[in-house]
This record gives sequence, structure tokens and C-alpha cells, in this order.
Amino acid sequence: MKRFSRGKKLNILVSNDDGIDAPGIEALVRELKKIGTVTVVAPEQQQSAVGHAITMNFPIRVKEYHKNGEFFGYAVAGTPADCVKLAVKALLKKKPDILVSGVNHGSNTAISSIYSGTVSAAAEGTFLGVPSIAVSLTTFRPADFRYAAKFARKLVTLVVRKGLPEGILLNVNVPAVPEKQIKGVLMTRQGKAVWNDQFDARRDPANKEYYWLTGALEEAEKELLFDQPAVRNKYVSVTPIHYDLTDYPMLEAMEGWSIAQLK
Amino acid sequence: MKRFSRGKKLNILVSNDDGIDAPGIEALVRELKKIGTVTVVAPEQQQSAVGHAITMNFPIRVKEYHKNGEFFGYAVAGTPADCVKLAVKALLKKKPDILVSGVNHGSNTAISSIYSGTVSAAAEGTFLGVPSIAVSLTTFRPADFRYAAKFARKLVTLVVRKGLPEGILLNVNVPAVPEKQIKGVLMTRQGKAVWNDQFDARRDPANKEYYWLTGALEEAEKELLFDQPAVRNKYVSVTPIHYDLTDYPMLEAMEGWSIAQLK
Repeated sequence: MKRFSRGKKLNILVSNDDGIDAPGIEALVRELKKIGTVTVVAPEQQQSAVGHAITMNFPIRVKEYHKNGEFFGYAVAGTPADCVKLAVKALLKKKPDILVSGVNHGSNTAISSIYSGTVSAAAEGTFLGVPSIAVSLTTFRPADFRYAAKFARKLVTLVVRKGLPEGILLNVNVPAVPEKQIKGVLMTRQGKAVWNDQFDARRDPANKEYYWLTGALEEAEKELLFDQPAVRNKYVSVTPIHYDLTDYPMLEAMEGWSIAQLK
Repeated sequence: MKRFSRGKKLNILVSNDDGIDAPGIEALVRELKKIGTVTVVAPEQQQSAVGHAITMNFPIRVKEYHKNGEFFGYAVAGTPADCVKLAVKALLKKKPDILVSGVNHGSNTAISSIYSGTVSAAAEGTFLGVPSIAVSLTTFRPADFRYAAKFARKLVTLVVRKGLPEGILLNVNVPAVPEKQIKGVLMTRQGKAVWNDQFDARRDPANKEYYWLTGALEEAEKELLFDQPAVRNKYVSVTPIHYDLTDYPMLEAMEGWSIAQLK
């Protein structure tokens, strides 16, 4: 577990999956600059729902990206996981003290955290030994990212004080409501809600069929101890997640399967 | 937990991430046809390391794909997760009894299961309520997929008899050695080995810099109860995995963080 000495200037790496020109990352950078030196390494283009994709079969290009006439960060022609790998292993002179991914435009609760590029950027940070936080604002509509960014800044300060065990990241979802309507902050577990996928089958101008994915998140539970109900009820949700996917109870149950006989 | 009545003809969905023309899926289909009706829905093109990507912002196209003059399956211009969603929600008349993803050309042990398109296809099956198995052969060199395919067939028969609890898939890794050198079959846990990423910085003909990802899996443990050491020691490795990423011990530890005060 990494802790920081008081007064040391924090080196903060920021990434996202909505792209370096997204409003969410701009709000986040503005807040984090109050507490440290911020380096932005983010995808050149929107990368939502890329999951934990990495680019292995193509070269990755990096450009300096300016916003309002000032250097803002590095724009990477790659995925969020690519950005974090590249930042830590090639672009930054030293390993950052902390990584914050976001603020994502859209919820990353329940099963969505599996598909999320925002969460995968934080996961990549975690794999590289950097304490990491993913922050999402739970709406797809035009939104105000300021409260979510401010919350991220306060959480960074807390994480720096408390430390985060290796292999664990914090997945934060902030309700898209005005700050004064936020009811509180809850520690939650990943919900079991899944997408009710539908495919819209259409025909193109040449009469060839194609499919378009639609669907909605089907809520599975109502208790505030899960991420999705927490944000729906206007609480900020903080879920500690890890990437040991082993199902230990099943591992034990399968002792009785005599699997060795399959050889 | 789903069980099957004896004598019922199995409906098996097969997908992969190496693409519908890969030798691994051909070997798998040949074996699975011995025990059921097989439908192949697989990516048109190689999709390794796409993680759990889904296509939301583009239409998805499907083509019938023929091999050796016969209909082999549906080729999808999308990711492995897209294929499975589309198969279950649009192409198949009824939900398949079981999904097998693979045989992947390359290992999906330890941290690689997070990046793996093969595993993500199986995960998508699991999310859709279909008992699912991911099968990988642990080499990137030209290889013989027959033993891995045969093992998959035997495991499917066992899974059909025993049932798989909801939300749990089996991640199988088969050593790339001749069948008679296989030492046995082990139930394992996901290893902690991570990639030691390196970026090769190069210049293109126009003298612009680009990066190419390289690196090797750094082994973290030697005990055969982990997936990576098991396959290195010529055991078939079977790991039950799930997608509740919540870190429950940390959730408890963070009770002491007074996180509510961050509001």
C-alpha cells in the first residue's frame, strides 16, 4: 500500500474514454490542478464500450493536444488502456502517484463496469501499480461535470491519505443532479443489473440487412448497498473493485466433479 | 442452474476472437458436432485483445460464411461480445443450451483473461444466461488444436451433466504439447502474472514518432493451483470465473474511511 508524505506535490495522471476533447475530462483536470501536477493522456477519439481493449497489431500514435490555446495533454490514437500503458511506460518520466479516469459521460454501474473504457483505464493503472479511480456521471444527456470533478478531487485527497491496497481500484458513480440534491456518499457493491439487449434489424439503401444494438439496463435490486440503486436515489456510489475473477466457492464445489478424469 | 434431460439434442453456440476462418474454431466445431447441433457466430476478422468491447455507435453486418464449399456459420463485422449478443438476441430461434468460445490461438491465463476477446465472448454468454466455456491453446505458434477441441467436447458433456451456476463461466487453457505429454487436468485460480509492457518507439518514413507495444507475461507464482504455472507444467487448467468485481474485504475496510464526509 502506497502512502504519501505530507506536503509532497502529487503527480496525477488523467485519462478517459470519451476522448481528450470531452467536457468531463476538462472539468476533472481543472479540479485536480488544485492539488497536484496533472498529466493528461487520453484517446484522440471517443472510445466508449471498448472494454479492456489494447492495441497490439497496429502502431500507436501520440499528438500534443491544445485547448484554448494552451497545452492540455497527449492525444493517443488508441484505447483508454493503451493511453494508460503508454503514459506510465513511455511518456511519463516517473510513475504517477495516482490515476483518475473520467469524468465519464454516462453511468458505469453494475454490468456496465465490465464494458466501460473509463473503468478499464483505471484497471490498467491498477495493473501497473498506480492507485486508480474511475469517475462517471450517470447521464448521457448534456450535463454539468463540476460536482463530479470536485468529488473526485476530494476522494483523491482521501485516497492519498489512506492508501489503496494493490490490485484494487475505486469505481465512482455520481448522480446527474444539482449538487444540493445529492443525498450523500455510499460505499456500494457492483449491482447485478444487466442490459436487456435488443437488435434493431434494418435494411440499407442497397437492401442489405444490418443490425443496430439498443436496450436498457434492467435493474436487479433496489437496496442502496448496490451501485445502481444508490445513484438512482441520488447518492454518490463508491465501489472497490478488483480483477481476480476466480469464483472461489465454485472452485471448491468443482472438487467433486472429478475433472481429472477428462484427460 | 440449468440441467438437461438425457438424450436431448444439445444446441451449441460457438464463437471466438481469432475470426471465423481460424483453425481453432474449425477444430472445435468438428468435435462439438459429435454431441450436438452447432451454430457458429464469429467475427469476420481477427479480434484478439479487444477485451469486452461492444459496438454501439455503428451498425453490425452479418454474412453467411462457407468453408470447403459448405455453410460454416455467420461472420459478423463486430467484436466477440457483439457476436454472442447478436446470436442469442437476433440470429438464433431459441437460446442455445451452451456456448463454447475458442479454441483461441494463445494463452488466456492470469491477467490475459481480462484482455481476452475469447473470454469476453463466454462472459457475454454468461450475462445472457447461457452456460459458457472459453477454451485457449497456450501458444502463438502454428499449432494442432485437436486435443484442445476434444477436451472442450468432453468438458461440455460434463457441464451439461453437472450444470453451471448462473454468472459463472469456465476458462480453460490447454498446453500446446502433444496429447500424450499432457499430465492431467487441474482446477485452478486466476494467476497474478501481469504483462511487463514495453513500448518500442519508432519513426515512420515521414520521421513522425509512433509506438509499438511489446512485452512478456511476468510470472508471479509457481504453484500449480494457479492457471499459468499449471499450463506451463503441461496440465490443462480449468478456472471458474465470475464478473462481480466487488472487493468485499475492501468494502468492509472502507467503513472506517468516513467517506460520507466527502459530500
